Amino acid sequence: MTLVRNALGRMVPTEINKKLAVPFQGVGKHRPTGLKVGPEIPTGADFTESKLKQSIDEVLDCARLKDGMTVSFHHHLRNGDGLVNLVVDKLARRGVKGITLAPSALFPVHEPLVEHIKSGVVANIEGSMNGPVGRLCTTGGFRKTAILRSHGGRYRAIQDGDLHIDLAFIAAPSADSHGNANGVHGPSAFGSIGFALADSLYADKVAVVTDNLVPFPCYPWAIQGGNVDFVVQVDSLGDPEKIVSGTTKITTDPTRLKIARFAAELVRDTGLVEEPEFSFQAGAGGMSLAFVKYLGEFMRKKGVSAAFARGGSTQLLVDLLNEGIVKYILDGQCFDMAGIKSLAENPRHIDTNPFTSYCYHTKGCFAPKVKVSVLGATEIDVNFNVNVNTHSDGWLLHGIGGFQDTTDAYMTVITAPLARKTHPIVVKDVVTVTAPGEAIDALVTEHGIAVNPRRQDILERLKGTELPLVSIEELYDKATELIGGKRAPKPETTDRVVAAIEWRDGTVIDVVKQLVTESRE
Amino acid sequence: MTLVRNALGRMVPTEINKKLAVPFQGVGKHRPTGLKVGPEIPTGADFTESKLKQSIDEVLDCARLKDGMTVSFHHHLRNGDGLVNLVVDKLARRGVKGITLAPSALFPVHEPLVEHIKSGVVANIEGSMNGPVGRLCTTGGFRKTAILRSHGGRYRAIQDGDLHIDLAFIAAPSADSHGNANGVHGPSAFGSIGFALADSLYADKVAVVTDNLVPFPCYPWAIQGGNVDFVVQVDSLGDPEKIVSGTTKITTDPTRLKIARFAAELVRDTGLVEEPEFSFQAGAGGMSLAFVKYLGEFMRKKGVSAAFARGGSTQLLVDLLNEGIVKYILDGQCFDMAGIKSLAENPRHIDTNPFTSYCYHTKGCFAPKVKVSVLGATEIDVNFNVNVNTHSDGWLLHGIGGFQDTTDAYMTVITAPLARKTHPIVVKDVVTVTAPGEAIDALVTEHGIAVNPRRQDILERLKGTELPLVSIEELYDKATELIGGKRAPKPETTDRVVAAIEWRDGTVIDVVKQLVTESRE
Repeated sequence: MTLVRNALGRMVPTEINKKLAVPFQGVGKHRPTGLKVGPEIPTGADFTESKLKQSIDEVLDCARLKDGMTVSFHHHLRNGDGLVNLVVDKLARRGVKGITLAPSALFPVHEPLVEHIKSGVVANIEGSMNGPVGRLCTTGGFRKTAILRSHGGRYRAIQDGDLHIDLAFIAAPSADSHGNANGVHGPSAFGSIGFALADSLYADKVAVVTDNLVPFPCYPWAIQGGNVDFVVQVDSLGDPEKIVSGTTKITTDPTRLKIARFAAELVRDTGLVEEPEFSFQAGAGGMSLAFVKYLGEFMRKKGVSAAFARGGSTQLLVDLLNEGIVKYILDGQCFDMAGIKSLAENPRHIDTNPFTSYCYHTKGCFAPKVKVSVLGATEIDVNFNVNVNTHSDGWLLHGIGGFQDTTDAYMTVITAPLARKTHPIVVKDVVTVTAPGEAIDALVTEHGIAVNPRRQDILERLKGTELPLVSIEELYDKATELIGGKRAPKPETTDRVVAAIEWRDGTVIDVVKQLVTESRE
Repeated sequence: MTLVRNALGRMVPTEINKKLAVPFQGVGKHRPTGLKVGPEIPTGADFTESKLKQSIDEVLDCARLKDGMTVSFHHHLRNGDGLVNLVVDKLARRGVKGITLAPSALFPVHEPLVEHIKSGVVANIEGSMNGPVGRLCTTGGFRKTAILRSHGGRYRAIQDGDLHIDLAFIAAPSADSHGNANGVHGPSAFGSIGFALADSLYADKVAVVTDNLVPFPCYPWAIQGGNVDFVVQVDSLGDPEKIVSGTTKITTDPTRLKIARFAAELVRDTGLVEEPEFSFQAGAGGMSLAFVKYLGEFMRKKGVSAAFARGGSTQLLVDLLNEGIVKYILDGQCFDMAGIKSLAENPRHIDTNPFTSYCYHTKGCFAPKVKVSVLGATEIDVNFNVNVNTHSDGWLLHGIGGFQDTTDAYMTVITAPLARKTHPIVVKDVVTVTAPGEAIDALVTEHGIAVNPRRQDILERLKGTELPLVSIEELYDKATELIGGKRAPKPETTDRVVAAIEWRDGTVIDVVKQLVTESRE
């Protein structure tokens, strides 16, 4: 594997799994060539019989299985998912080998994949790995190089032909026999099913799996029957308790509340909230929720409203929608039952997918229309490069999610406590770069707010405010102090690249190398 | 031009405008090869500036105009459209020559195109031609061979790469600066904007033209900003009075009422209405409306409901939806204000487009899910072949619309008076075949109902009913009698093929030849 230095100075390969790879060239610098994928032209003549299959096994019988194929899933079932393990078990029993899995994300529930990777059924993962599978990857347990992409990057890769899917499984809380499907109705309802859109449009074969077969027409048809080959009814898609936790709660930790309040004050004091096109995005973590709560209070006080909020939707965001402080929710995923219900019922709560929201290879997605994104991170360095994938000890335990895509906002704000136990958030050089410093605009900690000096326009907006503005270097020093002055050395790795981190435009922004470890796995 | 005999015995070309053409091979017999179109991969880096252009002229400045390019439009503005003439006038003034226009349909309001065709600005039309432009085509006034396609066929042709669009104009009653657009809101609201979907997905450059620019997000976003290059605000899209006539009225003509009633009795007596998946489609003509009215009455009496109705929506259909006799309307176009309002407000009134409804080159569209289609025709022959394009005197005055696509229904019923003035509806051999007899299941006239003998299953359903069943030959004889025994000879044509009629799978089902005429044009 030949490594070259990319625009961030990171050493990245020029070829991954025998395909050309382009080193990161800076935000907006890489220009794509070629054509989007043109899938095979199907004909209605092949679909005069029912698409209903009796079982996953019958789908596999019909799907022309072969070694080395790529099978995809989406992650809306989260840690309650029962489908990935079921299908891969069946593939294993059929003796299929060398599969690439292309899930939008994996969770701890997918730990059984570890055995299938070790046995060679699964050769690689192109997708987010939260937990045990990422742990295996870090220790060099994959036969190939894993590829991590953002939500928008995954759509891009499928659309651009970098990720060809042979067989896509789409777990659908509601579907009809034609294959029309959505995520908002039914016992396993999880809300938006948008992460599966690209799979439905571009995979060779598409199987919709549902525990709630409804009469035609299943509507909304976020997934359209015209793209679907097979429909299978199953008893259950997984564990509904774990699909939607229902426990998205505002933090009560005073430090985190302070950070959230600083972030909300930062947004307020930029004056953005008073502009007619104001909009914001925040996640479902306890601190993000607190940020939304404070921001809502400030907006209520000022009598202003946001043109839209980008969800991850929660009860809190739904309340702001119903109150009129937020005019629309553009939702990418629902984090609680209130979000799901609102998406199903409120016409101002809009279902989105990675094409509309995040894909960089469109004639514009709406990510740059978001004025403020507030995000978490595991590390940020003095150049504002951010790591959300690996821990400071080198373990690859998190996917990118929409992180890279949301940095397209006018102001991207990282919120984090300055130190977690002995781990400082601000470092000289992040272990892994998920997003380049040029895309990150501010870091908010309990010890002050550092605005990226590249953003003089934001600093200009903040003149005369009482915000605790500091430099990132000051935060670095403060962090060092907090952990007692003793920074841990960088984790020790071998030369083997176990995973590549793609920037949202398909270039390689960084790699993860195999960790030298004493059998932690 | 080499002509060969197709599966219906019609002589059709093997090449049209220097592209290969496939002769019709029978319903469901032609198997497509190759890939759907993969449009150029765009990048968000090219869309960081506003897409808003000051004028159509600025769009044309940006659009890299060249002679021979293909420019497309959609026809939801119908005879109130102001955009096609405006744009083509501007192209003419810029000296562009040899353009192919690819409108989904043209109307009498587009008569000014006649001059642009004569002057060479426009070389050809691939699209439906209702009225003056069709008249010009019939007399050999085009430089190339026109191509007529059904709604589904047009989507297919664009998707399959048979019809490449360089620049698409999408007239939108509501749009935002990102290019998200719909047809349901605003002063020029016309309802579904579905006919423009393929253009937005596959054209090189896409311009949304609106008289109602709304703040982001314009929702529903039937047209998505990620596919749009330019947005232009104009004072008016056309004449709202003519966009939606508002005068869709049930016929009062006793003969037509009788036919409509026979058709409704036919549907009732098949027993289909009592089956849980019953559904129907009917247009907005006076006789079609009468059919819907009678059918609704029968269904009310029986206490049954339809799983869905396929619109063209009208007040009448909306009333059935609100009453619960129809569970969903799957709407392709709105024919009156009641239809538009219902589409905008009622979640059971579903917006469709030719991909979901009609395109044959999908993994199934919903056309075959419709149980009964009731359609008009200009001619039908004793083999049940139907002509909706040319009049019996050879003039090409009508497009295909969704006609071919709707014949995919379980039972396709043609309703027509047995003779119009001196023109019998039943002939030995239609002037032009729009749909093959194998796709047509019954002809309902005031003198009886002829069921296609191919459909023994339908005849079986009708055993013991009191319907006035007759053979098509009896209707032929009766028609001859009605016009005094004197059938007009076939119109006299030259050998020149002026237009090709494509079947919905892209094969050539028939051609229109240049009419020998004494300067009727």
